[in-house]
Amino acid sequence: MIRPATGPVLVVGTGLVGTSIGLALTAAGVDVRLRDRDGAALRVAAERGAGRTDPPAAPACVVVAVPPAQVAAMVAAALTDFDTAVVTDVGSVKGEPLARLAASVNDDDLRRYVGGHPMAGSELSGPWAATAELFQGRAWAVTPHPGSRPEAVAAVTSLARATGAAVVTMSPAEHDVAVARVSHLPHLLSVLAAAQLGGAPPEHLALAGQGLRDVTRVAGGDPALWGQILTANAASLRELLRGVRADVDLLLAGLANAPDQVDDLLRRGVDGTRRIPAKHGGPARAEAAVMVAVPDRPGELARLFGDAGQSGVNVEDLRIDHDPGRPVGLVELVVQAAAADTLVDALVARGWSAHR
Amino acid sequence: MIRPATGPVLVVGTGLVGTSIGLALTAAGVDVRLRDRDGAALRVAAERGAGRTDPPAAPACVVVAVPPAQVAAMVAAALTDFDTAVVTDVGSVKGEPLARLAASVNDDDLRRYVGGHPMAGSELSGPWAATAELFQGRAWAVTPHPGSRPEAVAAVTSLARATGAAVVTMSPAEHDVAVARVSHLPHLLSVLAAAQLGGAPPEHLALAGQGLRDVTRVAGGDPALWGQILTANAASLRELLRGVRADVDLLLAGLANAPDQVDDLLRRGVDGTRRIPAKHGGPARAEAAVMVAVPDRPGELARLFGDAGQSGVNVEDLRIDHDPGRPVGLVELVVQAAAADTLVDALVARGWSAHR
Repeated sequence: MIRPATGPVLVVGTGLVGTSIGLALTAAGVDVRLRDRDGAALRVAAERGAGRTDPPAAPACVVVAVPPAQVAAMVAAALTDFDTAVVTDVGSVKGEPLARLAASVNDDDLRRYVGGHPMAGSELSGPWAATAELFQGRAWAVTPHPGSRPEAVAAVTSLARATGAAVVTMSPAEHDVAVARVSHLPHLLSVLAAAQLGGAPPEHLALAGQGLRDVTRVAGGDPALWGQILTANAASLRELLRGVRADVDLLLAGLANAPDQVDDLLRRGVDGTRRIPAKHGGPARAEAAVMVAVPDRPGELARLFGDAGQSGVNVEDLRIDHDPGRPVGLVELVVQAAAADTLVDALVARGWSAHR
Repeated sequence: MIRPATGPVLVVGTGLVGTSIGLALTAAGVDVRLRDRDGAALRVAAERGAGRTDPPAAPACVVVAVPPAQVAAMVAAALTDFDTAVVTDVGSVKGEPLARLAASVNDDDLRRYVGGHPMAGSELSGPWAATAELFQGRAWAVTPHPGSRPEAVAAVTSLARATGAAVVTMSPAEHDVAVARVSHLPHLLSVLAAAQLGGAPPEHLALAGQGLRDVTRVAGGDPALWGQILTANAASLRELLRGVRADVDLLLAGLANAPDQVDDLLRRGVDGTRRIPAKHGGPARAEAAVMVAVPDRPGELARLFGDAGQSGVNVEDLRIDHDPGRPVGLVELVVQAAAADTLVDALVARGWSAHR
């Protein structure tokens, strides 16, 4: 834990992530100072309780939370301005800014830098969308470079943990390969699906269901931010995209005359979904879905969850799925498989239409 | 409405969709008869109340709810076996089975056939997963061919509406182009994202977040079923896939040296997401997300929805997002934008950590 006794933490950049870090660290008892070129954003962050705006004399740690294209310059400035501080950042790509830093900062200063990347965000942005809970239970990659001082790594790890995050340590290069696969490529494939909707007549879109909404949700993210992220991780991403192009070619051929190849790809997809770890980071647990029809008016969800809560079954995840034309929603409650029948019985006994 | 007076409805195939149709029509007062080669599935469907298993003398309507590859043969058999019945099916592709039917059934019999496709399903399958509410508020495409009798179109439309679905009428060819874009292509892009996970070390997958889970959810669907759907709609799908390949090539080039092209594609993606109609089929309404931190134990969701319900604000959609390592979930409540501040104030007043 970064403690007040070691000096304050300076957060540079009071957008969604920087302000959320300020809120989380303040809640953990840390003396947080805030800086942003945008006076309005800075004031909102401070008024929300993310930290003070008077400059610190000698921060123990500086967290650079600025757009990807500005990370290297702002980290370099922080290493120069505060010559004893540990400096970290929260950018989505680690290799490219490190290379730019290494070219502009002396080796000794660079030893105080350790990259970081909290795997949390929102389609919203700005300090008004920030929350102290943003990092609770999320992964936070900490990415030391070969010259990073062990004490600096320990400090950044403590800071990430103080926000409630689960730290995953890996090299900058390994991080970039990992996020290309689990974040940047899926984002691009979501964009490709959404981009193809441009040519559709509105009446065709009336057939849209939940699957389309899920696949394309992340494609709604800020294009300016994502453009910076994707181009900064171009090397890892292009390698994966070449694999995708090979799979598209395989599909184009397979759909015409080799259904076995289509089948192989579909099975690779199923296998891929099974590799995604269970929530909470624990071992994969068997889950089951319970479907319940719920009238679409205030109070009905409260009644449902009240009844579900009285059954003693913990709801792990849920989805509301109500589509064109009708005032009834279908709620899918995900529970541990062993508890699903108990939940169904309890809900049916209370008059709900519920089924596994 | 198909009324008992006009004769019973025969449902051929008691899987998830067929059994759900039986349950919904039975609930609407229709005399439903069930048929399936699989005696166990048939018995489950009947015991769940989806219909009777004694064969009807002269059904008013036959609903063929079998896997895609068997649709044409089973529709042809129904048209022959029941020479006054209107026959429909629920297959995900309409053009290919119609072409096969036209080659094997005389024109006069074919006039009693009208294709259909309810846009509802589940990652689950089988009669045990069926529910009378499966089609409530979902789109149901009704796809007359040029020879379809108007009375047959009216009967199938009534049947679909009797299940609670919202009917969208279009030609078989138009349907196939539409679902290629809003369902089959997004499914394939989800599969491509999931398939790339196969090469990842487990520690890289520890960085997975909600975006990856959303994009890849549908890729977990049954490969055998999806293989039949995709190959039956190969022509429409290949045209879209060629567009995707062009976009992938554009990305490969743009990531290397033309960031403007990447930006253009990202913006096309955002525009595409905005074209997806609002739920309930109404005009797009401004919505806003309210984020609330919720301890991950029984009863907390009930308390949250109880408090939300007392604010009088209707929750339109929601998501629970709890990730590795921590016993707190972040719940995102989607409400009408104009009501978001009311909800936040009400929740904060009751002690929740809630923010827009």
